[in-house]
Amino acid sequence: MAQDLVMGIDVGGQSSKLGVVNANGEILAQCVVSSLQTELKDYLKDLTDAIKDLIAKTADQGTVKGIGIGAPNGNYYKGTIEYAPNLKWTYIDGQPTVIEFAKLISGEVGLPVTVTNDANAAAMGEMAYGTAKGMKNFIMITLGTGVGSGIVIDGKMVYGHDGFAGELGHVCVVPGGRKCNCGLEGCLETYTSAMGVARTARHMLAEDKRDSLLRQLDPEKISSKDVYDAAKEGDEMALEIFNYTGSLLGRAFADFVKFSAPEAIVIFGGMAKSKEYFHGALVKSMNDNLMKIWKNKIQILYSSLKESDAAILGASALAWD
Amino acid sequence: MAQDLVMGIDVGGQSSKLGVVNANGEILAQCVVSSLQTELKDYLKDLTDAIKDLIAKTADQGTVKGIGIGAPNGNYYKGTIEYAPNLKWTYIDGQPTVIEFAKLISGEVGLPVTVTNDANAAAMGEMAYGTAKGMKNFIMITLGTGVGSGIVIDGKMVYGHDGFAGELGHVCVVPGGRKCNCGLEGCLETYTSAMGVARTARHMLAEDKRDSLLRQLDPEKISSKDVYDAAKEGDEMALEIFNYTGSLLGRAFADFVKFSAPEAIVIFGGMAKSKEYFHGALVKSMNDNLMKIWKNKIQILYSSLKESDAAILGASALAWD
Repeated sequence: MAQDLVMGIDVGGQSSKLGVVNANGEILAQCVVSSLQTELKDYLKDLTDAIKDLIAKTADQGTVKGIGIGAPNGNYYKGTIEYAPNLKWTYIDGQPTVIEFAKLISGEVGLPVTVTNDANAAAMGEMAYGTAKGMKNFIMITLGTGVGSGIVIDGKMVYGHDGFAGELGHVCVVPGGRKCNCGLEGCLETYTSAMGVARTARHMLAEDKRDSLLRQLDPEKISSKDVYDAAKEGDEMALEIFNYTGSLLGRAFADFVKFSAPEAIVIFGGMAKSKEYFHGALVKSMNDNLMKIWKNKIQILYSSLKESDAAILGASALAWD
Repeated sequence: MAQDLVMGIDVGGQSSKLGVVNANGEILAQCVVSSLQTELKDYLKDLTDAIKDLIAKTADQGTVKGIGIGAPNGNYYKGTIEYAPNLKWTYIDGQPTVIEFAKLISGEVGLPVTVTNDANAAAMGEMAYGTAKGMKNFIMITLGTGVGSGIVIDGKMVYGHDGFAGELGHVCVVPGGRKCNCGLEGCLETYTSAMGVARTARHMLAEDKRDSLLRQLDPEKISSKDVYDAAKEGDEMALEIFNYTGSLLGRAFADFVKFSAPEAIVIFGGMAKSKEYFHGALVKSMNDNLMKIWKNKIQILYSSLKESDAAILGASALAWD
C-alpha cells in the first residue's frame, strides 16, 4: 500500500543533503547536491532537479506530501533565508540578501515547503529520533564552523515573535572581545566554534613561549582538527586550548539554563568529536556559574545521530507538521 | 447573581498584598500583611487570617474558587518557595529552606493554591491587563531591590523542566565582576537593581575625584533614590551612573533577544521611575549588541500597571487556570 512520505533537506554551506523519510523516521533514499553555486538560479535548478529525482525514485514506496528544509538563517514564519553569509547564491552585489526560499521551491515542485534554521532542524531530529527523545525542555547547541542553537520548551521549538529565536552563538561571552562575522564582538561563536578553537590556538602560540606540536604548523592554517590531533598526543597547549573552550562554553551554558531551565543541553556537530578534551572543563565551569537550585542537575549530552541524518530527519519532521 | 472569584497574593520581602479579583480583572477588595515575621507559623497565621477575612468580605459578591500566589523563588510545579534569601520566615538555622507553601495555605483555607515566582506573576498581570496585552512573545524584567524576570513564549509563561526558568537577574554581564547574594559573580542584578545602582555610586565616588551632590551623603547609606534625586538636579556623576546602568541592561537585553526573539521587553518595578535617565543608554546599547535582523526592531516598554495591582492581578490569573 502506498504510504505518505516527506522529504527533509539540510542546506549547508558546502553541500545540501536531501532525504525521503517515512513515518517511522527511516530514510528511504537520499542524495547530495553542491551548495557552492554563486547564482541563485543555478542552485535552484540543481536542488529542484534532485528533489524531483528523489521523488521519482521513491514513487513505488509512497507519495511525498511535503518538504521540510533546515537552512542557515532560515525563517520558519516567512519561509525565507535571510542574510546568510555562508551561502554565496543568496548574494546580490556582494551582500547576502533575503531569499523567498519556500516559495521558490514550492513553485517549482508543487509541494508545500516549510523552512527553519539548520540548528532548529537538528534539534527536531534529536527530539524525534536521538538523544533528546522524549524530552520536553532542552537546548541543542551545534558546534561546527559556527555555533548554532535550537531551543525546545514544553516539547515545542521556540521561534519567537519573528521566527529568528535561538541565535545563542552570538551571545556575548567576552565583553569587547573577538570580532565576529555577524558584526558584534565577543560572541560565543568566536571562541567555541571550530574556527574559534583555531583562533585560540593562534592567540596562544603568539602569547606563549611554551613548546608545542602546534608550532610545527603554519599558524594561519591551523584548524581545530590540528588542535584535536595535538591533544591526542598529550600536547599541553592543545589540551589548554580545549580547556579554555570548555570553560567559556560552560559559563555560557549556565546563562542559558537561567533562561529556560532545560533538562539537558545537547551538543551536536563536528566539534563534538573533541568532547573528551573539553567536556570536563565545560561541566565544571557550568556548575561553577549556576545557582544552588541547578548545580549538578543539568545534563550535558552529545548527539547520538549521524550528523547528516539528524538534519534530514529534523527537517522532515517540519513537513509532517 | 454570585459570580466566580479568585484571589491573588503577592508575597514580597517587606509585605504581602492580597486581592480578590473578578473575571473582568477588577480588584474587589484588598489588604496587606507584613512579611517580616521570623517564624513560619506566625507568618502563616497572619496570612491565612487575612485570606479568610477577605473571602468573608467579598462573600456577597461571589465565591472565591482558588488562590494564585507570586513569591520570590516560587516554584510553579511544586508549589514551593525554595531558598528565598529575602523571606526570613523561610529560614531554619540561619539558612533559607524549602517551604511547601501551596500545601500549607491550601490545608488551612481549603482552596486550591498555585504558586509561581513574583516576576512571572507580574508578567501574567502585564499580559492580561497591561502594556503586554495581546502580546504572545515578550520578556518582563523587574528592576527592584533585585532583578527578576518572567518570559512569555507563544502566549505561555516559560517554567522550564523544573519550574525555575527565568532567572535573568543572574546571567553574567561582567565575568569575574561583583559578588552577588546568590553566590555567583558579575550577575546583572549586582549592577542594575536598585542595590546595584547604589553600588555603582559608591564605586564611582571612590574612584573618581569629580564633585557631585552625592558626596554630601554617607556613601554606605546611598540609595538608588539618592542617585535619582541627584540626576534630577542634573548632577553629572548621577547621570553617568544611570548611563552605565542602562548600557549594561542593554547589552544583557540583546542577549535575551538572541534567545527568544521577543516582540518587546517590558520593564517593571521601582527602578522604572528613573527610566528617563537610563532609557536612552539602554536602547543604544541593546541595538549596538544586536545583529542586523533585530537592530531597532525590539520594543522597550514600561509597565502601565500600578506595581501592587500587577502582582495581585498576575497571581490571580494563575488561579483562573
